[in-house]
Amino acid sequence: MTAVDLLVLPTASPGDVTATRTLAERGLNVDDVIAVVGKTEGNGCVNDFSRGLSAAVWEPILGDDAVTVFSGGTEGVLSPHVNLFVTGSGRVAGHDRGLVAAVGRTRDLDPAEIGRPAQIALVRDRVRELLNELAVTPDDVHMVLVKCPLLTSSQLAALRSAGITPASQDTYESMGRSRAASSLGIAVALGEMDDGHADEALTGTREGWSSRASASAGAELQDCHIMVLAESPEAANPLRAVHGEMADAIDLDGLGSLLDPIRAQGGTVRQIFVKAEADPTGAIRGHRHTMLTDSDINATRHARAAVGGLVAALKGDTAVYVSGGAEHQGPPGGGSVTVVYEVPARGAR
Amino acid sequence: MTAVDLLVLPTASPGDVTATRTLAERGLNVDDVIAVVGKTEGNGCVNDFSRGLSAAVWEPILGDDAVTVFSGGTEGVLSPHVNLFVTGSGRVAGHDRGLVAAVGRTRDLDPAEIGRPAQIALVRDRVRELLNELAVTPDDVHMVLVKCPLLTSSQLAALRSAGITPASQDTYESMGRSRAASSLGIAVALGEMDDGHADEALTGTREGWSSRASASAGAELQDCHIMVLAESPEAANPLRAVHGEMADAIDLDGLGSLLDPIRAQGGTVRQIFVKAEADPTGAIRGHRHTMLTDSDINATRHARAAVGGLVAALKGDTAVYVSGGAEHQGPPGGGSVTVVYEVPARGAR
Amino acid sequence: MTAVDLLVLPTASPGDVTATRTLAERGLNVDDVIAVVGKTEGNGCVNDFSRGLSAAVWEPILGDDAVTVFSGGTEGVLSPHVNLFVTGSGRVAGHDRGLVAAVGRTRDLDPAEIGRPAQIALVRDRVRELLNELAVTPDDVHMVLVKCPLLTSSQLAALRSAGITPASQDTYESMGRSRAASSLGIAVALGEMDDGHADEALTGTREGWSSRASASAGAELQDCHIMVLAESPEAANPLRAVHGEMADAIDLDGLGSLLDPIRAQGGTVRQIFVKAEADPTGAIRGHRHTMLTDSDINATRHARAAVGGLVAALKGDTAVYVSGGAEHQGPPGGGSVTVVYEVPARGAR
Amino acid sequence: MTAVDLLVLPTASPGDVTATRTLAERGLNVDDVIAVVGKTEGNGCVNDFSRGLSAAVWEPILGDDAVTVFSGGTEGVLSPHVNLFVTGSGRVAGHDRGLVAAVGRTRDLDPAEIGRPAQIALVRDRVRELLNELAVTPDDVHMVLVKCPLLTSSQLAALRSAGITPASQDTYESMGRSRAASSLGIAVALGEMDDGHADEALTGTREGWSSRASASAGAELQDCHIMVLAESPEAANPLRAVHGEMADAIDLDGLGSLLDPIRAQGGTVRQIFVKAEADPTGAIRGHRHTMLTDSDINATRHARAAVGGLVAALKGDTAVYVSGGAEHQGPPGGGSVTVVYEVPARGAR
Repeated sequence: MTAVDLLVLPTASPGDVTATRTLAERGLNVDDVIAVVGKTEGNGCVNDFSRGLSAAVWEPILGDDAVTVFSGGTEGVLSPHVNLFVTGSGRVAGHDRGLVAAVGRTRDLDPAEIGRPAQIALVRDRVRELLNELAVTPDDVHMVLVKCPLLTSSQLAALRSAGITPASQDTYESMGRSRAASSLGIAVALGEMDDGHADEALTGTREGWSSRASASAGAELQDCHIMVLAESPEAANPLRAVHGEMADAIDLDGLGSLLDPIRAQGGTVRQIFVKAEADPTGAIRGHRHTMLTDSDINATRHARAAVGGLVAALKGDTAVYVSGGAEHQGPPGGGSVTVVYEVPARGAR
Repeated sequence: MTAVDLLVLPTASPGDVTATRTLAERGLNVDDVIAVVGKTEGNGCVNDFSRGLSAAVWEPILGDDAVTVFSGGTEGVLSPHVNLFVTGSGRVAGHDRGLVAAVGRTRDLDPAEIGRPAQIALVRDRVRELLNELAVTPDDVHMVLVKCPLLTSSQLAALRSAGITPASQDTYESMGRSRAASSLGIAVALGEMDDGHADEALTGTREGWSSRASASAGAELQDCHIMVLAESPEAANPLRAVHGEMADAIDLDGLGSLLDPIRAQGGTVRQIFVKAEADPTGAIRGHRHTMLTDSDINATRHARAAVGGLVAALKGDTAVYVSGGAEHQGPPGGGSVTVVYEVPARGAR
Repeated sequence: MTAVDLLVLPTASPGDVTATRTLAERGLNVDDVIAVVGKTEGNGCVNDFSRGLSAAVWEPILGDDAVTVFSGGTEGVLSPHVNLFVTGSGRVAGHDRGLVAAVGRTRDLDPAEIGRPAQIALVRDRVRELLNELAVTPDDVHMVLVKCPLLTSSQLAALRSAGITPASQDTYESMGRSRAASSLGIAVALGEMDDGHADEALTGTREGWSSRASASAGAELQDCHIMVLAESPEAANPLRAVHGEMADAIDLDGLGSLLDPIRAQGGTVRQIFVKAEADPTGAIRGHRHTMLTDSDINATRHARAAVGGLVAALKGDTAVYVSGGAEHQGPPGGGSVTVVYEVPARGAR
Repeated sequence: MTAVDLLVLPTASPGDVTATRTLAERGLNVDDVIAVVGKTEGNGCVNDFSRGLSAAVWEPILGDDAVTVFSGGTEGVLSPHVNLFVTGSGRVAGHDRGLVAAVGRTRDLDPAEIGRPAQIALVRDRVRELLNELAVTPDDVHMVLVKCPLLTSSQLAALRSAGITPASQDTYESMGRSRAASSLGIAVALGEMDDGHADEALTGTREGWSSRASASAGAELQDCHIMVLAESPEAANPLRAVHGEMADAIDLDGLGSLLDPIRAQGGTVRQIFVKAEADPTGAIRGHRHTMLTDSDINATRHARAAVGGLVAALKGDTAVYVSGGAEHQGPPGGGSVTVVYEVPARGAR
């Protein structure tokens, strides 16, 4: 059980680690960081080197057990930032529960496993272990973040030479396949889906999802980085979380149903983690969108920009975590939502 | 004085004029259309041929006095559509005022005039004429839409050969200069700015604006197309409008202050016309954005996507009119907003 | 048998039909045009409205039997232009053979047929008819150009609703599937492949191709537009053609083997028609390329730009016809090449 | 005087430093490297993080005096690679001259100095020092490479706040201003231009250039990194160089005039360093190009792709160094060219 605090800090560029100074000012150091969950300003697609640059500057200074999850793409108003999850300083007076987190990695995936049942199983098993480590049940969990690999040109060529059919022949599409497999692994680990259904969903059906799954893919890693975020009565700190989903990309009511009660009870929103995607039907509430016929800008970029505009307006600032490609992370065309917020101490309420 | 109705109709592609069928079903025909104000699905920048295609299919079937304003760019959730302003069918019972509109064109601009005081003057004078035609005062006006030309490579080369310094050497930037000049012309015509200030603003200062100006530029025309939208007690129909502004790209309160009273009085939002842009300071409420350092996607595209996500969520559908590049159309980093809505007839309220 | 002349004329924009003036100056009129084969300046991908705009302005002024083939994408140095194939004015003294062409259309394809054996069969049969019409054998043929449809979001959604699996779920990828089917139809019609092999190749193998096939896909049509270009002893004009292939995107020798003999015999190159693509192995002569991992610019755009730079340099001007996506049009990673040239009259040689 | 050898080695990604293994296999180590001149696979524009990633992985392992020059953009066929300039192993028998190189840095530039006379002077002075260090005259020099800073959004905002007018208000355009100033500094240092002319050229005239200048800009540095490459009779190694220029982007003859004599004398081309740009007149040999009206892909990307296709075909492999934006680096619309080649030892010729 690791109680955590969350610092949302701006970055001046993908190579910027000055957030560590803020840690120092608060009496913390980088060894207290268990996860760096960042939005970086690349295209969020295959050739996004902002993620790789952030990983290259952060990983050498973090502890061995910490993980990084860099999600590319700050389209529209989105502001590049890092969410630092740091181990909390014991029990805080006035609280009888709090936010906890655990992080881990799978082994490296063979390219042939990406987007395949093997990836589901690896993520599923690691998430289960992290739940055990936290001593929480699936019901306590508010978000499972996964960063997972994609298929590059070289890997595709090697697979073809070896006579192996990859999950996708297209590098961009392989990101979606990898996110899907990770998310299905999360859904199974949380008891929201059974193994058979998960494996079957890899054929491309969009049935079944977890509103607590948030997966993003990148070329900067070969294993999966995982963070489980939960509430636990074993912890005592002012952080709480809720989760839910956007039914579509303009689901103001869905977001309101999560945010309104927080504000009604005097809570302060610390961060909103949202997944977004282009509605696969090509329309939103009956109106055609053009995200899937735009050969200049990939659909995940459009989705982040649009949902980011809405979510930032609701949060009141633009340092929100909106990630693109929501396969099995909330309903098709919508996306999973987790809100981390702070509540006043009991006496102060 | 021309009372108008507004039909917001989907398009299947930029070449789609099947909206005329809907007109026919309602007992109207294309000669009743005074303006086609469309969102088309190109990049909204210099080489946006979706605007040209829409103009090529609509203009031959419209009456001689009608104008077209095609604004490119349906990034994110935005849905391609046309807003048809049609002449209204007389006085509607239960109403003692209503929406009126007048349209017109300037003469063709010489490329040397684009983004220069000459353009301000041409737009200013034509807007004043249209106000006279409508017999309304500047206070009655809720929106002035202008579609204006830009500078192409060939025109830039010709100007340089002639020893004339163009308003910009860059084709994309020339769009902003043209929008600025049109908007300053509107501001002067509406009495919100004097000529001297307007001419001075062309040097690039962003001081002074009209929250009723909405200008977009394109290579598909050499003159300016103009529509003035106002409320008049001489008309009697269920349409009304309000205008205001977004202070920045996530100004939920600004939008709420316009929409909430409409809904409180039982009104129905028909359309929201919004201008959007990347904050020229590079930050929104203190958080850095990346729209002005993105060499893959132009800033106007980012701005439309983000603001479109928010405005569509508030309207409840994605066929909203969000146009990019808000020079002197609302405050820097924000944009002008006009909401057209319908009120119940007196007896029915 | 229709002897043809070729005019290569610049366009100022996709909506520019002033080439008709040049026709008039030469004593020709638009009814003499049997095919307009243009390079337009859109992205050459799904949402390329420059093709649609060109079709919208040209088709109403052409004769009923004429066809248009607009290939989008003038990346790099490529110059937008139209290649007008016009019926020749009888037998030219000093020539005992010459260039001939025939054009036609298939019926509209059902979206379910795109990229499927039905498309192969439709193209194959129509090409055969055009060969008969020209009274030439497959050996006389130097190029078969096809413009064919793609799958849009709306069509994909309709197919899915109907329980039909489309050739691709991705709009951009559907272009390649359609080009492949058209090219396989050409290869069968020219006796270069049998039906069984062609149908099998649709599964994605890249084995077998025609170095005379040139296919491009677009959303602006539902049928296939076809032009067969051949040499015939029945004609007598100064135009000739050769065909061959680029083995890869930098195949200077392949191009030289076609161009050198033409120049050695005093011929003048009129036009070079080339297909180009990103090498599907991800490498060219052992060096990695990045066209297939670039999520900002599609691979066909990269390929046109690079091959266009080379071919324009060899031609000596930039109004060359380079089209992207070379599935079964020349070897994988390379592309088919047809050079149309003029020879002096016998006495003058 | 530092005699140098050149290794052209592939990279698997911007973060790949396995080229050091090849060094080791050849009995060299990273301390022998004086310059890493790489082509990385980002967009080559403002938000190109591939350059930053390469700098982040290379700079910590290089000697203190070594410099890096990472030029982004491997459009079309271009293959990501590094050119390692390593100190040569003494005098090679059979040679009485050879290639030498010196590298250095300027101090950090203040953002207000970028694209201004101060940058010209800094580069000029440093180049002169490097010539002295090499004990060569300007006539011996074949190339001066410069990597220089650009203006970011934050810097622009800071300058505006301070009441300072930056060289450009646009981040992408600032790259061209910085390249221009660096190149003018080179031209002055090489005695090809006087100070007055150089400062005047900053106003935007394109008169005057050096065919030995090659400058590229990036956000990954604040100083200028410089390498001077020359031939010297003090060295004795098999490397030689020639320089010249492309008169336009399809100047096959210009390239041939450099390459043909090398091959005629039995030389082997090791690398071709070329600058490329969109012709500022909007046309190439009278034919319109669309690079300056394309709002989706910046002109430098188009230029690299097209010129890269040609140069790679002439070299016979795609690991060529083509850099975009040729302000004062060769004639307008063309670019500077330097060919490094190897000659057989005297006895072997």
